[in-house]
Amino acid sequence: MSININKNKNLKNILQGTKIHLVAGCHDALSAKIAGESGFDAIWASGLGISAVNAVPDMSILTMREMLDSAAAMAMATDIPIIADCDAGFGNIHNVAWMVKNYEQRGVSAVCIEDKTHPKINSFADKTQYCVSIKEFVEKIKVAKFSQQSEDFSIIARCESLIAGLSMQEALDRCHAYVEAGADAVLIHSKQKTADEIIAFLESWNKRAPVVVVPTTYPQINRHLLQELGVQLVIYANQALRAAAGSMQKIFADIRGNDSTEMLESDIVSVKKIFELQGVHQTKDLEEQFIQ
Amino acid sequence: MSININKNKNLKNILQGTKIHLVAGCHDALSAKIAGESGFDAIWASGLGISAVNAVPDMSILTMREMLDSAAAMAMATDIPIIADCDAGFGNIHNVAWMVKNYEQRGVSAVCIEDKTHPKINSFADKTQYCVSIKEFVEKIKVAKFSQQSEDFSIIARCESLIAGLSMQEALDRCHAYVEAGADAVLIHSKQKTADEIIAFLESWNKRAPVVVVPTTYPQINRHLLQELGVQLVIYANQALRAAAGSMQKIFADIRGNDSTEMLESDIVSVKKIFELQGVHQTKDLEEQFIQ
Amino acid sequence: MSININKNKNLKNILQGTKIHLVAGCHDALSAKIAGESGFDAIWASGLGISAVNAVPDMSILTMREMLDSAAAMAMATDIPIIADCDAGFGNIHNVAWMVKNYEQRGVSAVCIEDKTHPKINSFADKTQYCVSIKEFVEKIKVAKFSQQSEDFSIIARCESLIAGLSMQEALDRCHAYVEAGADAVLIHSKQKTADEIIAFLESWNKRAPVVVVPTTYPQINRHLLQELGVQLVIYANQALRAAAGSMQKIFADIRGNDSTEMLESDIVSVKKIFELQGVHQTKDLEEQFIQ
Amino acid sequence: MSININKNKNLKNILQGTKIHLVAGCHDALSAKIAGESGFDAIWASGLGISAVNAVPDMSILTMREMLDSAAAMAMATDIPIIADCDAGFGNIHNVAWMVKNYEQRGVSAVCIEDKTHPKINSFADKTQYCVSIKEFVEKIKVAKFSQQSEDFSIIARCESLIAGLSMQEALDRCHAYVEAGADAVLIHSKQKTADEIIAFLESWNKRAPVVVVPTTYPQINRHLLQELGVQLVIYANQALRAAAGSMQKIFADIRGNDSTEMLESDIVSVKKIFELQGVHQTKDLEEQFIQ
Repeated sequence: MSININKNKNLKNILQGTKIHLVAGCHDALSAKIAGESGFDAIWASGLGISAVNAVPDMSILTMREMLDSAAAMAMATDIPIIADCDAGFGNIHNVAWMVKNYEQRGVSAVCIEDKTHPKINSFADKTQYCVSIKEFVEKIKVAKFSQQSEDFSIIARCESLIAGLSMQEALDRCHAYVEAGADAVLIHSKQKTADEIIAFLESWNKRAPVVVVPTTYPQINRHLLQELGVQLVIYANQALRAAAGSMQKIFADIRGNDSTEMLESDIVSVKKIFELQGVHQTKDLEEQFIQ
Repeated sequence: MSININKNKNLKNILQGTKIHLVAGCHDALSAKIAGESGFDAIWASGLGISAVNAVPDMSILTMREMLDSAAAMAMATDIPIIADCDAGFGNIHNVAWMVKNYEQRGVSAVCIEDKTHPKINSFADKTQYCVSIKEFVEKIKVAKFSQQSEDFSIIARCESLIAGLSMQEALDRCHAYVEAGADAVLIHSKQKTADEIIAFLESWNKRAPVVVVPTTYPQINRHLLQELGVQLVIYANQALRAAAGSMQKIFADIRGNDSTEMLESDIVSVKKIFELQGVHQTKDLEEQFIQ
Repeated sequence: MSININKNKNLKNILQGTKIHLVAGCHDALSAKIAGESGFDAIWASGLGISAVNAVPDMSILTMREMLDSAAAMAMATDIPIIADCDAGFGNIHNVAWMVKNYEQRGVSAVCIEDKTHPKINSFADKTQYCVSIKEFVEKIKVAKFSQQSEDFSIIARCESLIAGLSMQEALDRCHAYVEAGADAVLIHSKQKTADEIIAFLESWNKRAPVVVVPTTYPQINRHLLQELGVQLVIYANQALRAAAGSMQKIFADIRGNDSTEMLESDIVSVKKIFELQGVHQTKDLEEQFIQ
Repeated sequence: MSININKNKNLKNILQGTKIHLVAGCHDALSAKIAGESGFDAIWASGLGISAVNAVPDMSILTMREMLDSAAAMAMATDIPIIADCDAGFGNIHNVAWMVKNYEQRGVSAVCIEDKTHPKINSFADKTQYCVSIKEFVEKIKVAKFSQQSEDFSIIARCESLIAGLSMQEALDRCHAYVEAGADAVLIHSKQKTADEIIAFLESWNKRAPVVVVPTTYPQINRHLLQELGVQLVIYANQALRAAAGSMQKIFADIRGNDSTEMLESDIVSVKKIFELQGVHQTKDLEEQFIQ
């Protein structure tokens, strides 16, 4: 699949460069299509997002199957590379091997696995979080790298030490170990309301290897600063989901609160715009070219 | 499944009453959950919507399998009944029989089939539309009614005569035939920019049997008038989808246009609200009740 | 769904009776259909079998999604009740709650969960097996019972103590605790080459609650003896799979070893028989009844 | 995906050669795995077979989604190329375009589409069969070729003229048109009890382009003769399915007819052999290599 190989290569190049790139957290193929059209560099196939549109908690209720099908639909919908949020790898090393084989086959360009226990719980959940041992996670990373078929597929190791209340040194030690095990990048996660923790990490990390961050709880961080500190990818993981949910609450209330929907038309995109996002024009092109 | 039987009964009662009820067009379980919380009476599992979130045209590209899985996920997510948009029944009478068996099993309360050819094209598409013969569609309705297992499951017959450019008399004749064949309601569709056509139909139809309308292109219609004219269900089929798509375009542009997302936080719902929609509190209740 | 409710009731009655009944281990809807036609009383939707037809190991590589879809297809194909092999409940109590909700909805009559860790490994695998604590498994059983919607849905607790090398007393203690937690039956598993272990268990258990056994490694056990010892269900879990696999190896070798397949026709069933199993005659009935 | 590209190339080379090669009709990943181990050159992902294991008729009851998932699972399970039986292309040219995009992505090496109407009915069904016009099918072939991404993916055009009772000349004319439209091979189908019809076709066709045959109803045909007559692929489409179904009927009857299963063990393969087919040894290799 030449197209996918190019996507994989593009993402790899971004990870190995010095400029920061923007990743859109998406929850379905439509959001991925819009993100691609909006100029983002890559898609984050968000576990929280995919769980949310299925109306189930982000705690391994959805299985690899649904997560995979959703990420693959995103890959079909856009030309920018997909990074799949793969939680804790859906189990042990055998699940990781099967996961990599499947995600790569389905046109995803990178998988991100985290060093927490499976079944997982969302990093922002008001619950105690548990990390597996460094040894156990290093094994998963090695198996993941061993399982990929093409050179440019990427494995991103997500460190949840700071989420789990472990020390900064533990986070640094883990990330070092993960990179030595073969990870193409580390994702360092934080749920602090300020960026202090992330900045401290990045300063100590000192550009040792590619870094990914997810400023959900610390939205004030400036992305130029992140670039200076050596970040390659910044994931805006759930803003589109939260915008969509809010807009639906509002429109549903407005529909019920009015006797007609005439005055709501100006607040929402046209059916024609939806058709465009669905690629209806391409079906017309096909008809013109092939139906006589 | 007592819960589903109740949902089916609730919808049946609405169809057999004289008050108009509001149906929210939904495209995934999340939108269905929000619609339920917003006070709607039923969900329209929209073919356009489910196609759109998969970024494919609404022309039988998605199969019954994806449409079914999506409608079933909506049924799992909310206590209000689901009406599934089943296009032209996904093929011939054998597909209709299989469809009814599956949708009923999966907790959907009604299916709606339309009298167009399969593969279908969206009613608002800028393409020629074709209806099958009355005889052929009557056979489908009879097979659908024959295939349902529980008394209160409903079959809604959607008449596309006006969409296909046929006469008002043809529309009335067809709807009469569909009701005689056993349909629990008719859905009369129009793509006129005014409500004249629908009003003319309703006046001639004269409350002969339950009616469903979908005011997408004629949003100015007042729902009190619809009730007077004998309409039981008004489907707002795609407004939530269009609100969500527009909100995502905006937030993605805003993210790219700013150096941080701090100022966007006030425009979108919180992660905590997303957690609520996912039912995270129910998992906490379960833990409190069962984990010692 | 009256039909499913009847299936559930039938299975419940069998569990609460004193006669032994035969359960056919199945791996797809076709094997379930044949089992139903062959006079079995119930179907075991086998994790080993479903994994095997997907050519992956029986160690939680397939997710609940594929297992559920397969068990549901079996339920669609036959009128006898389905008992779904649900491994260790696919995770923690939240996975168990979601599992019960889904399996019951999809027409399965009972789920069986085992007291091993997740991801699981097949009980006959040449690997060390680990049981979770009694406390943890009792919580799962309570959550499972709490999550079922209809009275007659059954939860079967599978005890793997003997598989994991724990003592007979441990097995008895666990099974007692599981029944007290609400399990409708216990499945006591053994991988001994003789039935001694199972007989010893049954004698000590002394008909305290319904029992299920799976004589895979001890095929010499006589089912009249099992009935005397208080067994309600005997599952022949994988014989059909093993027969099918062997027959395919043979026919493929025969095809390659001959210049035509003429002489092989007598060894295999006719295409017409396959049509019967697919229910082609029912489609003809439908056409005769509804197409004019 | 280098592996798939190689599979595609291997199949292309076979089609362009002069030697006949053997294709095993398969119905799931397990049968495909066994076929690969048995020395077959390619797999036919059979629509009849996949329908049969789902216990539904072979008449477009299963959708592209289930057919695709099943063919993709076969591709994951074996190193030999997969030819997917894609019925009438699952609809119109838009379905064909979507189909090619998906099957190629999922690791299938060729799709075969037939010139009958959709929804299809099995070629051996005791029902009237209808072909679409040459023009309509030629459009589908052109769209299929246009939609493939990699050079070596193949499109096989299946001619059902002889099945539908049309003339030999019609069959020849159609096959010529299909090859001119870009088909990489034609599959000429017959339901005669003798091979006369197929032989007559092959003699007139005179090796004009690669040919595929399916000797289900004329099993006496010698494959050396087929090679002489210019056939590249002979598909033994359903023998494995029919062997498996028969073996399951027998073992289920035997289980019920005996008080134990001891004497049946010699008739069926061991659990250990099933483990081998599932690749359990590969999981042990992985553990040895990566777990310390």
